[in-house]
Amino acid sequence: MHAADAAPAIDALLDRMTLAEQCAQLVGVRPCDLADSEGRFDPERAAEAIPHGVGHVARIGGWAGREPRDAAAFANSVQRFCREETRHGIPAIPHEECLCGYMGPGGTVVPQAIGMAATFDPDLLRATTDAIGAELAGIGCRQALSPVLDVGRDPRFGRIEETFGESPALIEVMATAFVDGIQDGDGPALGATVKHFIGHGTPSGGRSRASVSVGPRDLRAVHARPFETVIAAADPDGAMNAYNDVDGRPCGGAPELLEGLLRDDLGFDGTVVSDYFSVPQLASVHGVASDDREAARQALTAGIDVELPEADAYRALEASVESGDLDRSVVRRSCRRVLEQKAALGLFADPTIDAERASDRVGAERTRQLAQRAARESVTIVESGPLPIDDPDRIAVVGPQADATVGLLGDYAYPVHMEDPDACAVVSPVEGLRRTVDARIDHAPGCPLLDDDRSGIEEARSVAADADLAIAVVGARSGLFAAETEDGEYTGLASAGEGISRSGLGLPGVQPELLDALAAVDTPTVAVVVAGRPLRVDAAVDGLVYAWLPGERGGLGLAEALAGTDPGGRLPVSIPRSAGHVPAHHARRPQSGPAGYRFGPGDPAHAFGAGESYATIEYGPLEAPDASETTAPLELATTVTNVSDRPGVAVPQVYATDLPGDRTSPERELCGFARVDLDPGASKRVSWSIPAVALADYDADVERVLHPGPATIALGRSSADLVDRQSFDLTGDPARLPPGRDHRATVTIE
Amino acid sequence: MHAADAAPAIDALLDRMTLAEQCAQLVGVRPCDLADSEGRFDPERAAEAIPHGVGHVARIGGWAGREPRDAAAFANSVQRFCREETRHGIPAIPHEECLCGYMGPGGTVVPQAIGMAATFDPDLLRATTDAIGAELAGIGCRQALSPVLDVGRDPRFGRIEETFGESPALIEVMATAFVDGIQDGDGPALGATVKHFIGHGTPSGGRSRASVSVGPRDLRAVHARPFETVIAAADPDGAMNAYNDVDGRPCGGAPELLEGLLRDDLGFDGTVVSDYFSVPQLASVHGVASDDREAARQALTAGIDVELPEADAYRALEASVESGDLDRSVVRRSCRRVLEQKAALGLFADPTIDAERASDRVGAERTRQLAQRAARESVTIVESGPLPIDDPDRIAVVGPQADATVGLLGDYAYPVHMEDPDACAVVSPVEGLRRTVDARIDHAPGCPLLDDDRSGIEEARSVAADADLAIAVVGARSGLFAAETEDGEYTGLASAGEGISRSGLGLPGVQPELLDALAAVDTPTVAVVVAGRPLRVDAAVDGLVYAWLPGERGGLGLAEALAGTDPGGRLPVSIPRSAGHVPAHHARRPQSGPAGYRFGPGDPAHAFGAGESYATIEYGPLEAPDASETTAPLELATTVTNVSDRPGVAVPQVYATDLPGDRTSPERELCGFARVDLDPGASKRVSWSIPAVALADYDADVERVLHPGPATIALGRSSADLVDRQSFDLTGDPARLPPGRDHRATVTIE
Repeated sequence: MHAADAAPAIDALLDRMTLAEQCAQLVGVRPCDLADSEGRFDPERAAEAIPHGVGHVARIGGWAGREPRDAAAFANSVQRFCREETRHGIPAIPHEECLCGYMGPGGTVVPQAIGMAATFDPDLLRATTDAIGAELAGIGCRQALSPVLDVGRDPRFGRIEETFGESPALIEVMATAFVDGIQDGDGPALGATVKHFIGHGTPSGGRSRASVSVGPRDLRAVHARPFETVIAAADPDGAMNAYNDVDGRPCGGAPELLEGLLRDDLGFDGTVVSDYFSVPQLASVHGVASDDREAARQALTAGIDVELPEADAYRALEASVESGDLDRSVVRRSCRRVLEQKAALGLFADPTIDAERASDRVGAERTRQLAQRAARESVTIVESGPLPIDDPDRIAVVGPQADATVGLLGDYAYPVHMEDPDACAVVSPVEGLRRTVDARIDHAPGCPLLDDDRSGIEEARSVAADADLAIAVVGARSGLFAAETEDGEYTGLASAGEGISRSGLGLPGVQPELLDALAAVDTPTVAVVVAGRPLRVDAAVDGLVYAWLPGERGGLGLAEALAGTDPGGRLPVSIPRSAGHVPAHHARRPQSGPAGYRFGPGDPAHAFGAGESYATIEYGPLEAPDASETTAPLELATTVTNVSDRPGVAVPQVYATDLPGDRTSPERELCGFARVDLDPGASKRVSWSIPAVALADYDADVERVLHPGPATIALGRSSADLVDRQSFDLTGDPARLPPGRDHRATVTIE
Repeated sequence: MHAADAAPAIDALLDRMTLAEQCAQLVGVRPCDLADSEGRFDPERAAEAIPHGVGHVARIGGWAGREPRDAAAFANSVQRFCREETRHGIPAIPHEECLCGYMGPGGTVVPQAIGMAATFDPDLLRATTDAIGAELAGIGCRQALSPVLDVGRDPRFGRIEETFGESPALIEVMATAFVDGIQDGDGPALGATVKHFIGHGTPSGGRSRASVSVGPRDLRAVHARPFETVIAAADPDGAMNAYNDVDGRPCGGAPELLEGLLRDDLGFDGTVVSDYFSVPQLASVHGVASDDREAARQALTAGIDVELPEADAYRALEASVESGDLDRSVVRRSCRRVLEQKAALGLFADPTIDAERASDRVGAERTRQLAQRAARESVTIVESGPLPIDDPDRIAVVGPQADATVGLLGDYAYPVHMEDPDACAVVSPVEGLRRTVDARIDHAPGCPLLDDDRSGIEEARSVAADADLAIAVVGARSGLFAAETEDGEYTGLASAGEGISRSGLGLPGVQPELLDALAAVDTPTVAVVVAGRPLRVDAAVDGLVYAWLPGERGGLGLAEALAGTDPGGRLPVSIPRSAGHVPAHHARRPQSGPAGYRFGPGDPAHAFGAGESYATIEYGPLEAPDASETTAPLELATTVTNVSDRPGVAVPQVYATDLPGDRTSPERELCGFARVDLDPGASKRVSWSIPAVALADYDADVERVLHPGPATIALGRSSADLVDRQSFDLTGDPARLPPGRDHRATVTIE
């Protein structure tokens, strides 16, 4: 959390506040409830809606679709109202979403989180979220409702695109960079929000917000680990509960999770906000509360400090205290946290911002350039085949995502939310190629995203047959929760995103048939998958590229990568052969029976960490000590050498493959990586200092201990391509490693 | 456990035993190590192999394929050797498998466990295992390595056929009946073995023996519950660990599971035997032990009293005690348990049996008749379509399982294990129909089980076109662990069974095409699925029947059911639409997002508990009290009425749909059922007395409590077809319900 400045004496302030005033800090308010019919701030409506002030203003820019300057002016009006028209003059925290950029008009849409993870480039992510933070701060937002720290291990789940993939070690590095970028900007202080606590990335059956089944060890070592690291390393202001239950305990009503695990164990000291509408769901969905009032009592007691987006259930808190059902100290506890956050954000000094500058900040060219670079770096070449594009005369660009605009954007991008392709200036893949490559480019969509309309396949085949190279841009458009109708049917073109889970992992519609038709043509063909979930491509195409959801400059970044700038992307998730192979992530435990299935292998079609370079790069050997103390970091190193005549990117990865302890370890688990740019002929030495905690495991009694004993670490180009392996002894006494630690390896490239 | 008789003073005996003698009681021995080259008992080899006696003799009848009388004589020879040639004269426990009957030459093969569960008829199961117990006891076996209490919730898993399905409430009723039948026979005392402790029915990804991810509540409320009930209600002699790890803790090395949960909490007081070869796997697979010696120390300390099948790792126990790595009291603890079991089995009085009678007992006509009745009762009519068979002139019987023999038998049937179709007298479906139905029966296989040979489909189509009714017997043959070759490929015709998991749930090979071809013919067509796992049938056939793996009289039982004897089978597992829909069991928790998937519903194709009757039967209403004490059983009742002119079977089912507590309850969960035979016009009243413990749940601190509050129970024809629902109040104080309880409803039919 930010350091406090110009803060009032919180205790004295709390003493002066009435119960109603304290409760007002524990809820959000929607901007529309403070506005007149034309959307302008209305002091009379505000006096009615938030007479005692308010904790948060929900979705300050995006909800009403205000232009940046208007959003900033609105935020200032709210702050002035709170300062001047409420008894204690406590400002509000306007918050906004920023999963893949500021989620409001004009916000730059960067690659979706899963694509940012594919870059394996935390420095780039930090720069990007620094720029996003400037956009948010520009409109008066003081809390960003990102990043997502969920461990994405079920590709059926519609929200897997929101995650940084399947590896806690990758997630925590990327998420720390995200929080640092948001919180350490030059402008007005802005807090980040780590979410969704906890387990949200592995819902049962991949079903939306479904129950999570996980034991105490995996809860800590897999799901809590990224939170632990980010809290220790970046001190985020906020955290948000998950919608799901864990082992039957809904996260929003579980003190053992929010007060116990998150605060007492992991050391979180900020405020916990509820995921939207999740408090009343303790009654309406989870059935652990009899009504909204009881839901509110449970949630506040559990540690949900602020109900968002507004006081659905928390409106009853006052009555619960007055009736004796809820101790007033619980209200005070959460109110103190909110006030401390507001003080740390500097709101008591001056909560307003310079509204005139908002339009310069939102959609700044700096952010767009970072978006483009991130789009390029996220491109993951699984099979280079005919790539890079080698001076062809004619290129056929086909497929339903070839001319996509909103189709390139992640869920929680404002244009996606509005279903408005014009809400930002997206460069489509075909347009990006036209601007980047000096060749005749023929475009034919081939087939729609979802429908089984095969009428365009022949045209696409014909265009491809006449070309020197065919690029088929296929995939899935990401969605909107609103795509689901009330009777459970879906409308719209999205097949991914929040609320949109799938039971299969193939390309939707007749896209597989389009690829089969192209594969039958002599022209070399590359399939480019533009989607936020790992989709399986079965067709016998020559090249295969995953471009994720690359954002508004996605077409340009993709074109640069296809044209020859080594992108360096690596798979942040395993791509299973089918939904029946789930879970297929790399960190599965060994089993005494066959790992395969009766009619085919059990390993993924493409492994976590995989991705080709256009350059030829040699990896290794892995240098490891003969012995390492259980209390000291493990020092590892290797050398990567570009033996080709073109620049390239190496992503050496280290995996723990055998560690002592009294639990069965995963067969391999990422514990360090680096992204290394290499000029032709260049050689670089990469060193990792891996903290002991990243090698420890939880004992039978769920205490974290690093045991002495023999251990093995491997160096890999991917989780499936281990090029060297070194064994060494962990020495000394068993080291107990209490929670509250940063698991990240320190990386040196020289 | 059986009551002790003629037991020596165990303490005094233990005092007299050397360490080596005690350790000898903690292992098994293979019969072949006690036999000469012609398989006869060889005292000299025995003196070498078991100089101090032995705990168990492994697979006394089946392993060497001895005929019953020879097996019995061999057992007697071992017992005489132990009595007369070892210092303390302690007899051995010969054990045998009996998952679906005595697993040795001549043993009657009854329906596989999943089919027995489909009968919803615990009385029939008790009679059947009583008969199986007589077969086992006839050859000198004193411990049966069944039943399986695993909760079968992943249909990809090859062993789902070994389970009594997905519902703990169904499993515990059937398993209690199984143990009662085995242990309460008239002959020599015989113990049952509950297994596999714990979690073995839900391996990650359905992969063979893979890690199990489950929280503490579900571990107790789902996986441990059947063990708790069976221990409380039937006092089984033995328990067996599961191969898998739970949350990283391998079951065979986890004292918190075997000593803590199983004994201290659930009240188990028998002996724990290891699943075959699982002790050394603590080192070779799970990696929690450095070598076999350490694996043995961990396993014995954890509570594995006896290593099976022989002393792979436990041969090192003596050395571990002598070196001080293992306290001798741990050896004594397990040795005491083995000696107490032997005393309780009456072995110290007379361990031999009448070998001359063995051949009469094994394969007795009584067992075969029960096998046939069970086969019939297990037949589950999902869509009756043209059934029952209505006096047709010509019936076409097609499909690769139509003339199956070993293909009708479950894994762990002796003929399956030997791949010997002649090892028992199986009546195939086509033969069963020929013997049962007065019609011309034309048979054509249509296609093979697995290969993509389509050459026979046209003949089958043609035969069907010429008939009045077509019955297509399709499915999957159950397997052998041995079907997997060393390089992980599979051979043989099996696509289910131990070690044979699948990533898809469709009919294997070209069977779907055969059904599509038949569906296109005018002749009414019924698909009969003969398989131990729930396979999805997509074809537009008129009728759909699941016959499971019906055993050696399967063809006759199936024919009786198709010909008009209302079978009464109900689905003991949900049949998901695809492997991507897993888990799809009925007891899933509610979620705030959509339960469906983007391109189709999330509910199963066919729901748990579903099954049609040939009769028209009215169910309900459900009678429930206005209030029930939290400490008292809940009294429910309903009436089922046969309003048709043919006899039928009703299976009314009661589901808890809303219970108070601080965990999210499943949307519905079976808590009682009854199988009711109804003559034409008859009406019967069914009453259930549901113990409080079956309505309780585990608090946030994992204490089991039944809370007061509003509750709702529904009456259903299946989990998806609830016909009435009653709400009532649970009254009184929260009732803490410590472990060690029988969850079964008491059922009265009058």
